[in-house]
Amino acid sequence: MKAEIISTGTELLLGKTLNTNAFYLTGQLSGMGIEVVYHHTVGDNKERLLSVAGQALGRSQLVFFTGGLGPTADDLTKEVIGLVLGLKMDFDSKSMDHIKKFYAPATELPPGSADQAFFPHGAKILPNDIGTAPGAIIEKDGKYCVVLPGPPAEMECMFERYVIPELNAILKSQERLYVEVLKVFGLEESELEQQLLDIRQQSPPFLTLLDKHTYMDVRITMRSNNEDLAWEKINQTESLIRQRLGSRVFGVNEETHAQVVGKLLRSHKLTLATAESCTGGLLGGTITAEAGSSDYYLGGVVGYANSTKEKLLGVSQDSLLKEGAVSAKVAAEMAEGVRKALGADLSLATTGIAGPGGGSAVKPVGLVYIALAHPKGTDVKKFQFVGNRDSIRKITVETALNILREFLLIYN
Amino acid sequence: MKAEIISTGTELLLGKTLNTNAFYLTGQLSGMGIEVVYHHTVGDNKERLLSVAGQALGRSQLVFFTGGLGPTADDLTKEVIGLVLGLKMDFDSKSMDHIKKFYAPATELPPGSADQAFFPHGAKILPNDIGTAPGAIIEKDGKYCVVLPGPPAEMECMFERYVIPELNAILKSQERLYVEVLKVFGLEESELEQQLLDIRQQSPPFLTLLDKHTYMDVRITMRSNNEDLAWEKINQTESLIRQRLGSRVFGVNEETHAQVVGKLLRSHKLTLATAESCTGGLLGGTITAEAGSSDYYLGGVVGYANSTKEKLLGVSQDSLLKEGAVSAKVAAEMAEGVRKALGADLSLATTGIAGPGGGSAVKPVGLVYIALAHPKGTDVKKFQFVGNRDSIRKITVETALNILREFLLIYN
Repeated sequence: MKAEIISTGTELLLGKTLNTNAFYLTGQLSGMGIEVVYHHTVGDNKERLLSVAGQALGRSQLVFFTGGLGPTADDLTKEVIGLVLGLKMDFDSKSMDHIKKFYAPATELPPGSADQAFFPHGAKILPNDIGTAPGAIIEKDGKYCVVLPGPPAEMECMFERYVIPELNAILKSQERLYVEVLKVFGLEESELEQQLLDIRQQSPPFLTLLDKHTYMDVRITMRSNNEDLAWEKINQTESLIRQRLGSRVFGVNEETHAQVVGKLLRSHKLTLATAESCTGGLLGGTITAEAGSSDYYLGGVVGYANSTKEKLLGVSQDSLLKEGAVSAKVAAEMAEGVRKALGADLSLATTGIAGPGGGSAVKPVGLVYIALAHPKGTDVKKFQFVGNRDSIRKITVETALNILREFLLIYN
Repeated sequence: MKAEIISTGTELLLGKTLNTNAFYLTGQLSGMGIEVVYHHTVGDNKERLLSVAGQALGRSQLVFFTGGLGPTADDLTKEVIGLVLGLKMDFDSKSMDHIKKFYAPATELPPGSADQAFFPHGAKILPNDIGTAPGAIIEKDGKYCVVLPGPPAEMECMFERYVIPELNAILKSQERLYVEVLKVFGLEESELEQQLLDIRQQSPPFLTLLDKHTYMDVRITMRSNNEDLAWEKINQTESLIRQRLGSRVFGVNEETHAQVVGKLLRSHKLTLATAESCTGGLLGGTITAEAGSSDYYLGGVVGYANSTKEKLLGVSQDSLLKEGAVSAKVAAEMAEGVRKALGADLSLATTGIAGPGGGSAVKPVGLVYIALAHPKGTDVKKFQFVGNRDSIRKITVETALNILREFLLIYN
């Protein structure tokens, strides 16, 4: 089955926004055995969108559209599909209810909102669980248009929850695809590839590696018309990978590091506090992204200035002067200080040089200390990360969570 | 002048490689005033490449090709361009010498290397200073094909050294596109569209609105062969929009809210502290995303548990019991507490219900209080946001920064 992806949005043609939607969809579709033969990117321009949509539907069975579902006049996707396929537009009152509910606390709907509830006749509507604009699958004469919102989070959520089952149904007459994703921390793509080389050669199941910046996804896919057999094979491969990688596998499918750590803290009935310098609050922000994190997370201190480290964390002036704010000693004192101040069982502290300025020969940009204080003492680890300010801060957060996870796995 | 970009390479259609070449070229071309109307990605497939190249050259004056210049049989770009433009292929001995030199230490050339020295008749050859395959510019009947290698480093080097001067010569007598972006906070896309309706109708310059989730981009674009005139017109439109929207315009082009607030704090020589409950550290994380934020940001407290609010922020148990953690009173006490504890000039506090659980009829999900404490007192504002946990937390962060920005704009 051949597919094309059409991304709409003038912002994509101004070099301001990287087209990650096409990349994401291509990876997903390839994994399902669907051959993507073209990507197209086109601005919010009716004539051009009509032209490219007409061509795509003329030659491919499956055409994905992302973007152009908003309430304004230059959001054209569904209208254009209606024109290409010769389908009139129908109003969907259920979608309108969803849009109204989304704006519920506001007194009135923004103008143009009702446009988002119109779909080409016969469309199967796909709910948007985290935004307003619903998506749709429109079938005519054995060709399928899959219409998805432009914001990546909404697009990915809709794809994973509602499009994959539909695609599986469409693909049914052939075979179905079964997928499991293992999330791996602490290995570069090339190291991971080396480690899994022989397992990969025993395909099927097929292994795909995907670099998610702070971690790697290992996607195990198996196409089969026998569900039990497919899962048996996937589980066998998963066991082999877990034997090989051990605790580097931190999660499965949608799990995040923060979620896994949260579960472990909850099951051990332990509380956590944080003291952050270089991450400036991102670690707390990541931990509290999980609903229910108040069960185990007490809060913390963003000790950005040295004065704050002294006042709220009790870091000694002596350590700051002699060792510097970015040092194992200060990291330890920060973790111990916040653990004591909040009465937490465990605490994490980060201090480092995120750059671009502030580095030196002895303490270069990317140098980070992470401390974990616990009832039996304080462990400090030193890291030399590479990347820009943003990526250094993000990998620091994930590494801190990983240190805590590894600690909790053997805690008793 | 309109341009299209055709990226070739099957790896781009397998979800393994993000197409950064198209992103890079689009940014460069937009900056030069060249309007990119389409991107296409196509595998190493002759029929499909012929089809998309033929269409692109039929409708656009400038077509960029990246990839497909290697020595193997599936590297087709130059051959396809020759076919589309009806040009025979010529052998270029100078390019062959370069290729030989590149492989000098090896005993013999890899098979197919000589193919890299063939170009459509009349091509202007572009040196590849860091790889083997030369690029080319091929002109016929006023249309230009620019052929670049696929590896991003080689492509960017060739573009910057050899293509930009050629483009400048081609563009000399042509129109260019000029762009300015205004960043607007606190208006929905549809409200903003309403407010700017009449200004939008006076085009050119053209206005495009883009929803960036927590704020809106208003993109002012003007096509002209007179740079001074273009900027004059853009500046006029900018003034009209600023008169209409006032301080809702928080930045220009790439500026972020945190950056703008940082500049204001620095110019006023004021320090800032934060006390966060529902945002859990994201506000500090956002402020410290700016390099140099240590000039004004002292740090703060993530007061997630009530006990932390009491211990580190001095929030009174009475307020927590009577008013609840999500209340104007507690927000004010949090802001005042952190301001005092850190000795900051100003402080921001957030407390709210980010959901999905924890809401009630009286205090629904999305209810957020934001407090700003300053030398003359403490201001608290109440909000009812819509969205999921993630979007409620993000809009809370941006709203807090906006409150501070509005305060600093009139501070003296």
